[in-house]
Amino acid sequence: MISTTAKINLLKKPTQDSWIEQAIANLDLILLDHSHCERKAAGAAINFMFRYPSHAPLVRKLTAIAQEELEHFELVNQWLDRRGIPLAPLNPPPYGSTLKAQVRPQEPHRLLDSLLMTALIEARSHERLGLLGEHCPDPELAKFYRSLMASEARHYGIYWVLADTYFDRDLVQQRLDELATVESEILSTLHPEPRIHS
Amino acid sequence: MISTTAKINLLKKPTQDSWIEQAIANLDLILLDHSHCERKAAGAAINFMFRYPSHAPLVRKLTAIAQEELEHFELVNQWLDRRGIPLAPLNPPPYGSTLKAQVRPQEPHRLLDSLLMTALIEARSHERLGLLGEHCPDPELAKFYRSLMASEARHYGIYWVLADTYFDRDLVQQRLDELATVESEILSTLHPEPRIHS
Repeated sequence: MISTTAKINLLKKPTQDSWIEQAIANLDLILLDHSHCERKAAGAAINFMFRYPSHAPLVRKLTAIAQEELEHFELVNQWLDRRGIPLAPLNPPPYGSTLKAQVRPQEPHRLLDSLLMTALIEARSHERLGLLGEHCPDPELAKFYRSLMASEARHYGIYWVLADTYFDRDLVQQRLDELATVESEILSTLHPEPRIHS
Repeated sequence: MISTTAKINLLKKPTQDSWIEQAIANLDLILLDHSHCERKAAGAAINFMFRYPSHAPLVRKLTAIAQEELEHFELVNQWLDRRGIPLAPLNPPPYGSTLKAQVRPQEPHRLLDSLLMTALIEARSHERLGLLGEHCPDPELAKFYRSLMASEARHYGIYWVLADTYFDRDLVQQRLDELATVESEILSTLHPEPRIHS
């Protein structure tokens, strides 16, 4: 199993203060983007199962993740309702597409890269929801963010464990290093539109 | 709300005996295909939410459906485990692609057609799982099929209700008639490979 230290070390650089300032000043937009993130996370888990239907450990673990992401999606949407924020499309920040461009198209690289990319996205979401849980001025909303932390941490651990199930650990660590460097680089310039991954 | 009669009347023609004979003679394949069907059903619900992120009633209802389909997916996969059937890809029968070809590409037709097509697929699944619940020679497996019936019936009801939420009832009924005719025609010739929708 992945150790707590290994989990924390997925990310190369912590989030800058400018992000949390932007997020706190735009809580409604961040909530709406968070709803999109949870739906995308459920969709990503299901896409893995479509692409690798014979990979039993992957199918079993990602079924559970997809269910949890849908639960979170529902909870975030209840918060949108409570704050009178209508569901609406949002331009995604460049984060996801820039990361996806790193995924090598040939198997088995594609599976390794996709698992590690998703682990990194989940790890970053976990870090940033934690920051919202700490700094959000609405105590109820802050509590909600904190309530999501445990399962979010489990999610990125599971993607890492799946990479470690199907690939040699040295290979996993080397590719994770490369992708994590890119991930932190993307976020080194704050995207002007407030998003979970701006 | 949709009446029970309206629900039953979604399908133009009942399943022929040849299908249930084929299915009973190939229970393991049918279980494996059923697993694929549940995953596809979860994926379809999530795809609707990706395409219509602002349609609040659709998002709310299909989140619940996606969760249930994933639960069923997990249960079917437990049955595969129990019977020693490994997860594996399967060629889909022509049913899905032939139905999809009926969906008009322009909105709002696309939404109407997609909702009704999915309602029909769910209604047919419901009918055929019911037949398996009645005729399956393994009493435990037959009981399992029967246990899925209530939520499967709810699912096609919900897709119909969503069509009725966003479109005029006459329009819904007219298009449903057309699509239901195609759906029954596709199944009038038994597909040689045993599938839920062969």
